[in-house]
Amino acid sequence: MENQHIIRNIIVETPSKPGNFAKVATAIGMGEGDIGDITTLKSGALTTIRDISVTSKSKKDFEKIISNIEAIGNGVKIQAISDDVLKAHEGGKIAMKSRYDVRSLGDLQRIYTPGVASVCMEIVNEPDKAQYFTSIGNSVAIVTDGTAILGLGNIGSVAGMPVMEGKSVLLDQFVGLSGIPILLDTSDPDEVVETIKHIHQGFGAILLEDIGSPHCFEIEERLKAELPIPVMHDDQHGTAVVALSAILSACRATEVDIKKARIGQIGLGAAGLAICRMLMAYGVEDVYGLDRQEAAKERLLQYGGQTMNSLEEMMENCDIIVATTGVQGLIKPEMVRKGQIILALSNPNPEILPSEAIAAGAAFAADGRSVNNVIGFPGIFKGALNAGAKEITYPMLIAAAKAIVDYTRPGELIPNPLDPAVHYIVARAVEEAVTKQA
Amino acid sequence: MENQHIIRNIIVETPSKPGNFAKVATAIGMGEGDIGDITTLKSGALTTIRDISVTSKSKKDFEKIISNIEAIGNGVKIQAISDDVLKAHEGGKIAMKSRYDVRSLGDLQRIYTPGVASVCMEIVNEPDKAQYFTSIGNSVAIVTDGTAILGLGNIGSVAGMPVMEGKSVLLDQFVGLSGIPILLDTSDPDEVVETIKHIHQGFGAILLEDIGSPHCFEIEERLKAELPIPVMHDDQHGTAVVALSAILSACRATEVDIKKARIGQIGLGAAGLAICRMLMAYGVEDVYGLDRQEAAKERLLQYGGQTMNSLEEMMENCDIIVATTGVQGLIKPEMVRKGQIILALSNPNPEILPSEAIAAGAAFAADGRSVNNVIGFPGIFKGALNAGAKEITYPMLIAAAKAIVDYTRPGELIPNPLDPAVHYIVARAVEEAVTKQA
Repeated sequence: MENQHIIRNIIVETPSKPGNFAKVATAIGMGEGDIGDITTLKSGALTTIRDISVTSKSKKDFEKIISNIEAIGNGVKIQAISDDVLKAHEGGKIAMKSRYDVRSLGDLQRIYTPGVASVCMEIVNEPDKAQYFTSIGNSVAIVTDGTAILGLGNIGSVAGMPVMEGKSVLLDQFVGLSGIPILLDTSDPDEVVETIKHIHQGFGAILLEDIGSPHCFEIEERLKAELPIPVMHDDQHGTAVVALSAILSACRATEVDIKKARIGQIGLGAAGLAICRMLMAYGVEDVYGLDRQEAAKERLLQYGGQTMNSLEEMMENCDIIVATTGVQGLIKPEMVRKGQIILALSNPNPEILPSEAIAAGAAFAADGRSVNNVIGFPGIFKGALNAGAKEITYPMLIAAAKAIVDYTRPGELIPNPLDPAVHYIVARAVEEAVTKQA
Repeated sequence: MENQHIIRNIIVETPSKPGNFAKVATAIGMGEGDIGDITTLKSGALTTIRDISVTSKSKKDFEKIISNIEAIGNGVKIQAISDDVLKAHEGGKIAMKSRYDVRSLGDLQRIYTPGVASVCMEIVNEPDKAQYFTSIGNSVAIVTDGTAILGLGNIGSVAGMPVMEGKSVLLDQFVGLSGIPILLDTSDPDEVVETIKHIHQGFGAILLEDIGSPHCFEIEERLKAELPIPVMHDDQHGTAVVALSAILSACRATEVDIKKARIGQIGLGAAGLAICRMLMAYGVEDVYGLDRQEAAKERLLQYGGQTMNSLEEMMENCDIIVATTGVQGLIKPEMVRKGQIILALSNPNPEILPSEAIAAGAAFAADGRSVNNVIGFPGIFKGALNAGAKEITYPMLIAAAKAIVDYTRPGELIPNPLDPAVHYIVARAVEEAVTKQA
């Protein structure tokens, strides 16, 4: 866990003279801290108090930063250190809210008994009306078994709840969907599939999240086959959509024709396999996969993919390299071929630092921080639900990836996920893809 | 379905002269309509436009009301008829909302990656912290299999969703809990229990709702035995709490000592059996049950109750009668004994009208409209969750019933559920009962 990022807010008081804040910023930088939001809490004649958000790679690094700041002297003082991340999680990040105020007995009779009975009967008489008169068509179950929570591994679904709530927050904030975390206490594919089938009627779609490999493949495929609503494992296909967008952006920046390129995918876990499949669905013929596990390579072959046998072979022979292994520093600078595009996506520590890859001759390099999943799933689900789609297909996912690239400005790899327009543009593209399919 | 209540809003324009609105009100009353909220939309020099909420027992009755109003003439005009119940249900009544605005990349890093990882690790290290840093401890799963939706019967859980959303609205509005509808596609006790067990970790408590009898008994008992969180079937115990409150209020009004009274419960479905058990738990010794089905009487005997053999025997021998049979007019005026307390609770049509019962000599009579379930479950769940209770016990339920009675003003049977204080008073009483048990 030494590589787990920690975020703290440091409240620092400095004399109100030019240069003092720069000393604090330098102290943080010397301690390997990333500075985030800075809020000025008090700007006085004598002193200024700032709230500085700092991300460190470890507690040790953070302690170094604190002692660096304390060593400045000359009136620079740390007033407090707060953990705004934990504070933001107190009581949870989400709540099921009424869309109406209940203020009178009339309200009560309308939203509850006896009025509600007539709405039930509307649905009995025309089952499709449940789409209009309930929240079902606007709801996405966010289902996890807790076996692959972020980079933390199999920590259980309760410990993974903050991630599920985070996804729910993003669905609400970006596209107005209702994301309902469902925490499973089993990873057995039969039990998972049975459980989700028994509760699926209450949701418009199913987002599978942080379910480990390889059982995630069977679970997703069976649910897709058996349920009449869209099902998507975000760690596979959401990631693959954003990766395809990033690859297309990189190709645009370097004037490479993706369909004529040879692409090597290092790591065939949930994300890696899905990226290969997405590239093949997009029409790239020369896609090769690599994994230490034979079973993972077998799976790619079953989907019609091709494999290579060694990292060296792949680095030598491919124009574009995508790595999702979780192994820091796997790619050595001497392996980089001149002109290569390298996306080393493992978080928080990439297979090769972009700066090292560029120095070694790569034409383009990026790490996982610049390829944010958040850009994909909200619009994909919104579009699928808007269109009344029964499933999420490759044409829909490719439409999402293209929409993201089209909206990416030169110099960016993907758009800013906080841009309110981007999720609606993705949703529109997905919706149109459904119409075209029909 | 002829007895299904319908609520419509009639927009009526009348000349602005005294007596015109009275004519409209009379026309509605002559058509057997109940007038609810009235909003004046326009009050002009010449005409006044009002939005009148009207509840009818059938579409035919409602059409009668419309023709009555149209027959008034003299400038009285119906401008529109709107269905505010359906309107209030468009898009559903609930939505999962973020408790925070995500406006900056700093926000995103705090509520999602990378910040969220540190919150997950807090929970890994101390599992109890999930109560503080997630919404789990504030969430109630509202679980139905759709087999006994209101008085409508087995219409399926999707058609029952408006009722589940209604419960969720009330949990949010009255006590700030997050109510999550879970719509089951099975009524098989094994499958229901397995499904709920597999998803229970995401919730602080389970509210079973509109699950039919007799499978509701097995499902509730098994879930209570197997889950470490509070489980309550509202149609049983929520109803029983409110019924006990109403009986206590009626006894207070008539100066009857409930513990010395002989109480007869007619109908031993989910509600009736639970009312008998609640009365016995409260300390009433002379509780008798009656049902057409031998199996229902058997169940009461298993719980230590006593039975009678005929309606006549029960009406002759009991001081207090509670009826939950769903059979309109079951109790004939000539059966009523002088001085009896009669609660005929079937909705929408009671076993005997309160006015008939009083005319026949009853000391006190009420129907189901005056005994509203809404007064019970929000405070019961809030109190149980506040106290960190692992189950809902009779001492907790009886504390809730007593708190409701103590808060009931003379002349009322139960308090107004829209009084913001009442649910917190119930919650406090339940919480204190948990502390006393420990």
